[in-house]
Amino acid sequence: MSLELADVERAAQRLAGVAHRTPVLTSRTLNERAGAHVHVKAENVQRGGAFKFRGAFNKISSLDEDALRRGVLAYSSGNHAQAVAIAAALLGSRATIVMPEDAPAAKLDATRGYGAEVVPYDRWTESREQIGARLAAERGLELVRPYDDPLVMAGQGTVALELLEDEPELDVLLVPMSGGGLMAGCATVAKARRPGIRLVGVEPAAGDDTRRSLAAGERVRIDVPPTIADGLQATEPGELTFEVNARLVDEVVTVTDDEIVEAMVFLFDRLKIVAEPSGAVGIAALLNGKIDARGRSVGVVLSGGNVGAARFAELVATTSAARPG
Amino acid sequence: MSLELADVERAAQRLAGVAHRTPVLTSRTLNERAGAHVHVKAENVQRGGAFKFRGAFNKISSLDEDALRRGVLAYSSGNHAQAVAIAAALLGSRATIVMPEDAPAAKLDATRGYGAEVVPYDRWTESREQIGARLAAERGLELVRPYDDPLVMAGQGTVALELLEDEPELDVLLVPMSGGGLMAGCATVAKARRPGIRLVGVEPAAGDDTRRSLAAGERVRIDVPPTIADGLQATEPGELTFEVNARLVDEVVTVTDDEIVEAMVFLFDRLKIVAEPSGAVGIAALLNGKIDARGRSVGVVLSGGNVGAARFAELVATTSAARPG
Repeated sequence: MSLELADVERAAQRLAGVAHRTPVLTSRTLNERAGAHVHVKAENVQRGGAFKFRGAFNKISSLDEDALRRGVLAYSSGNHAQAVAIAAALLGSRATIVMPEDAPAAKLDATRGYGAEVVPYDRWTESREQIGARLAAERGLELVRPYDDPLVMAGQGTVALELLEDEPELDVLLVPMSGGGLMAGCATVAKARRPGIRLVGVEPAAGDDTRRSLAAGERVRIDVPPTIADGLQATEPGELTFEVNARLVDEVVTVTDDEIVEAMVFLFDRLKIVAEPSGAVGIAALLNGKIDARGRSVGVVLSGGNVGAARFAELVATTSAARPG
Repeated sequence: MSLELADVERAAQRLAGVAHRTPVLTSRTLNERAGAHVHVKAENVQRGGAFKFRGAFNKISSLDEDALRRGVLAYSSGNHAQAVAIAAALLGSRATIVMPEDAPAAKLDATRGYGAEVVPYDRWTESREQIGARLAAERGLELVRPYDDPLVMAGQGTVALELLEDEPELDVLLVPMSGGGLMAGCATVAKARRPGIRLVGVEPAAGDDTRRSLAAGERVRIDVPPTIADGLQATEPGELTFEVNARLVDEVVTVTDDEIVEAMVFLFDRLKIVAEPSGAVGIAALLNGKIDARGRSVGVVLSGGNVGAARFAELVATTSAARPG
């Protein structure tokens, strides 16, 4: 497998006029706090509320008519599920999403609302992989993986493609890391377009499987990490994504849950935007001096905004970062 | 007094490159809920977090050098205070802000952070008008009124000027109303540029002084209204603003505090943006069918985003509008 700039450029063509070209936000206060020129790529306002739509659409739009007619399959309780549901509906296909039966009703409803069929499973007694494999076999469904697929990675890379079109002089790029698809796509673009750029992955402190894997030179598996960043709970890097990221990523830094909530509050109070915990890790790294950003031009991927007001209120209540004002 | 389109156009020239040209946001879900094509003018990301910067800067930038050297004065504990402080600093002047001594520390700090001198007063025993008049006389300070000044009104009108440049075909424009400066400026632009447009003011149900005043044909004074919309607590329309608004505004509708919180949560969950209570009233009116918007192109001024994460969390906790998700 090799992922090239050209793959991401082809993805950008497929996504043109379909995905939102999300804004790049700046803030004087953020610049002051970080001591840097910070450019925030706001994927929280992407379709479905996260960058995941890019990869899902790129994958599904590359299927042939027969495959589209049979439909696609994903297992996810998060942003990937909604992304696959939206992309499938737009392409005249049909998504089947295998979700835990105890997933929040709002998530089940949202996924159904996009036209997907939800297949609930008992996550204590059943394996979603087995259910998925059975459904795929019975119905001829095409599995859309959340990250370990070159077409998905290429789609996610359009985030960096757009950011570097808007801000060609970036010195550093901060990207949240879980399975590694977003980073693999972004890294491929960034190192091709701007070889001197420093690529920094950001993980929750409790779930630093990628940092450990890069240090070990091979994929390391950890337990499901206890973190509020529910989008960053992969237990090991993807196989294909790790090939790319081991070659291109310069560094991985970690942030604590408290630092994540503080960053969410900062984005709320100062930039007036909503970030989900996983989406705020790059800002958390910057606000807490996890990288040397002094005087640099820094891109940060704010990967998603699906947190919900009630959950946000809960998180704020647990922290001293929020002060009245 | 007459306020003309040309006054607002002059204000736009003064504000060019200084005020943010704020984005106009759209949302499929909002369109579906409202049954209309909705265009949200996002003044929550204006400098200082609210539209107020426009009027304050237009006023202060029109002062002569002597007046700028002596400085400006405002009394406000809200968005107007910060707007005057920022505008004065940008213009090389100095702002003195008369604020209640029991205002939230964060607001006092923020205003000082913009370089203003804060003069605290005891709002139970002292009158801010008297203190302001004394300071103005002693120091030769120029008072910057929050709305009842043609230059302030003209500055606020640039909100509608920009919105109609981006969306020339608007059928309806929804504007929050308190003292009436934002509406007076916007109405002047809108009726000049698009005579058939319907102008709808939005007030909190507990503070409908403008609705009553328009019905009575004269300014009606009410008690300080008990509402979470702290930016909309004027007790009567301004004198100059009422002259304009009585002529141009088609209708005033009201929304309850619960409807306001519901709209704040909707904007958080769906558009991923932060609105303060006063800023969300237009969306609240749309979501609750307060106007006939079916099939129309509707502009909504989201006037500000200064609510604070902790206060937002409190408001969410009081409502059933926020569901986990």
